Amino acid sequence: MNFESLNTPAALIDVAQMRRNIERMQQRMNTLGVSFRPHVKTTKCEQVVKAQMDAGARGITVSTLKEAEQFFASGIGDIVYAVGMAPAKLAQAHALRRQGCALKIVADSVACAQAIVAFGREHAEPFEVWIEIDVDGHRSGIAPDDDALLDVATTLSDGGMHLGGVLAHAGSSYDYDTPAELVRIAEQERSRCVRAAERIRSAGLRCDVVSIGSTPTALAAEHLDGITEVRAGVYVMFDLVMHNVGVNDTSDIALSVLTTVIGHQSEKGWAIVDAGWMAMSRDRGTQRQKRDFGYGLVCLENGEALGEYVLSGANQEHGIISRAGSPDLEIGERFPIGTRLRILPNHACATGAQHPAYRAVNPDGSIETWPRFYGW
Amino acid sequence: MNFESLNTPAALIDVAQMRRNIERMQQRMNTLGVSFRPHVKTTKCEQVVKAQMDAGARGITVSTLKEAEQFFASGIGDIVYAVGMAPAKLAQAHALRRQGCALKIVADSVACAQAIVAFGREHAEPFEVWIEIDVDGHRSGIAPDDDALLDVATTLSDGGMHLGGVLAHAGSSYDYDTPAELVRIAEQERSRCVRAAERIRSAGLRCDVVSIGSTPTALAAEHLDGITEVRAGVYVMFDLVMHNVGVNDTSDIALSVLTTVIGHQSEKGWAIVDAGWMAMSRDRGTQRQKRDFGYGLVCLENGEALGEYVLSGANQEHGIISRAGSPDLEIGERFPIGTRLRILPNHACATGAQHPAYRAVNPDGSIETWPRFYGW
Repeated sequence: MNFESLNTPAALIDVAQMRRNIERMQQRMNTLGVSFRPHVKTTKCEQVVKAQMDAGARGITVSTLKEAEQFFASGIGDIVYAVGMAPAKLAQAHALRRQGCALKIVADSVACAQAIVAFGREHAEPFEVWIEIDVDGHRSGIAPDDDALLDVATTLSDGGMHLGGVLAHAGSSYDYDTPAELVRIAEQERSRCVRAAERIRSAGLRCDVVSIGSTPTALAAEHLDGITEVRAGVYVMFDLVMHNVGVNDTSDIALSVLTTVIGHQSEKGWAIVDAGWMAMSRDRGTQRQKRDFGYGLVCLENGEALGEYVLSGANQEHGIISRAGSPDLEIGERFPIGTRLRILPNHACATGAQHPAYRAVNPDGSIETWPRFYGW
Repeated sequence: MNFESLNTPAALIDVAQMRRNIERMQQRMNTLGVSFRPHVKTTKCEQVVKAQMDAGARGITVSTLKEAEQFFASGIGDIVYAVGMAPAKLAQAHALRRQGCALKIVADSVACAQAIVAFGREHAEPFEVWIEIDVDGHRSGIAPDDDALLDVATTLSDGGMHLGGVLAHAGSSYDYDTPAELVRIAEQERSRCVRAAERIRSAGLRCDVVSIGSTPTALAAEHLDGITEVRAGVYVMFDLVMHNVGVNDTSDIALSVLTTVIGHQSEKGWAIVDAGWMAMSRDRGTQRQKRDFGYGLVCLENGEALGEYVLSGANQEHGIISRAGSPDLEIGERFPIGTRLRILPNHACATGAQHPAYRAVNPDGSIETWPRFYGW
């Protein structure tokens, strides 16, 4: 397999750039004095995660128990399942722990904690549970000063479970785009999560792990006093949403979709390509950001970004490329049928999920197929 | 496997409803006197497509050559690949034809036709080619009165290819939502495609097939004079986008995502569920329609729609359910942790694509796993 023979659409990873992204984050975590636990939901790919572990990551974060099963099978035993535990999934989690996986699960309510305790007692399984903290109101978790925090902690502890720590995710960091705002939201994530840990400890309970993280806050935090570990996912590829947030240049984006021009509507300035939403995902994450890239930013086949051309429309297997501003009436001559282009994605997690495998482009030009999985 | 033991999230097919949808479309095509060629991109699932063929479909439409390969392997030989042919994919198409697949390919430019002719002559392969007609300006194709139409037709014919017919897809029908508008766009699709066929015939060339179709126009057309076949895809499941267009009730939707409540933010009126965009897709197709359903309409576990509750937010594996209008401050009691709900999708093609398999719920309550594939 060589680059010229690749079928399109294809999800390309620039391996050298991916390694730079991994190194950048790991170095930063080392400097801040915390462990780093990458979120593998971004790629669900053994080769990518191996590169993250080799660079110094300690354990992984998963978004599904299937990810936990797959990565445990590939040799990673320290895993946090960072989605609130559904009672019906406890048997699946228990099976992993019985096989020797140091799986940690998450709760953010007394009802959830009680379900874990009931199952754990019935099966003599002292689950390690982390309590999810809400640091910005964007989704799940218990506010650090909420009475429920200690209710959940004591329910778990009195019930014989292992209260391992607290975790938070400042998902709202994606809504900002200035360095000052990112520093502020990073400090808010840090301080509120530390506050929750301190309340638990003040109640006489242990709270060893204080885990936070999102790609923007991990890269913006000025210090991480009181934090033991950081989690982040999309940094490994970066994308246009993160570019708008301000944490990467477009040249830092390691994932792109290779596509072929299959037609034109020249009087409209359109080139039609074989990358539609099935190849890019329906993610329109840049729609409300400082620059709307449509379904992605167009690059030449060699990766050079063409600042003005975006994937402005997408059907299932058709994409429409056009120039922002005035239509390019010579687009048919500029990108003739058969021309190959690359599209940088809005959201690397969503775009990757559309593909059964990545095509990893090594620095020497050789290509490897790196499978990824999906489903639950 | 029974319904109670299903892992969540899961893509459920109500088999009885799916069969009603198939029957509705096939009956209509029979009444209108045309062949019906379903677009299998919606499900990429052998069991669903078998039900469509058993009901009377003649051949299938595909959006990728992988679909052609998979369905040819399962015994279907009459296949249209309805995306403009990329020259680099001709070898893949040729391989299918050499195995006996009556694959038809599509061109909408002289450059594409020339590439097909060059490859076809080199390999002594008289490809069957259909010319794509643009009937509404929404994407690809040649306008019926454009000079290029006859240029493409003669290029193919003079080059020894088999000019099989014309095809069009009124994708803009999704933008309307009144019966009168749908009738008008259906008639526009019909008349313009017939006009293109007549021009080709007037030039002394054959044009046997006149193929049109989209779910809304197929269901709205008052007559199909001059048309030989119709293609449609999403009708097999229906969805909320089609509901807003006006062609199905929410009770006609055969696809839903089963999910579990994993938490709450009660003071905001939120229930958190384990169906995020990975389970629903990022498709927000109802955003600009008469009713915005967020990421989907919430139903009870038994399928009864709860008109006011929608999946208002979605992260990768988290969804937020809330009530339209005023927040439901009792949502924690209404949907306790562990409650199972179903979500009707905006777009059945996009939601299905997120799942490795459907869980088909038979009328007797038994469950079958119907795999689907993805990739290129």
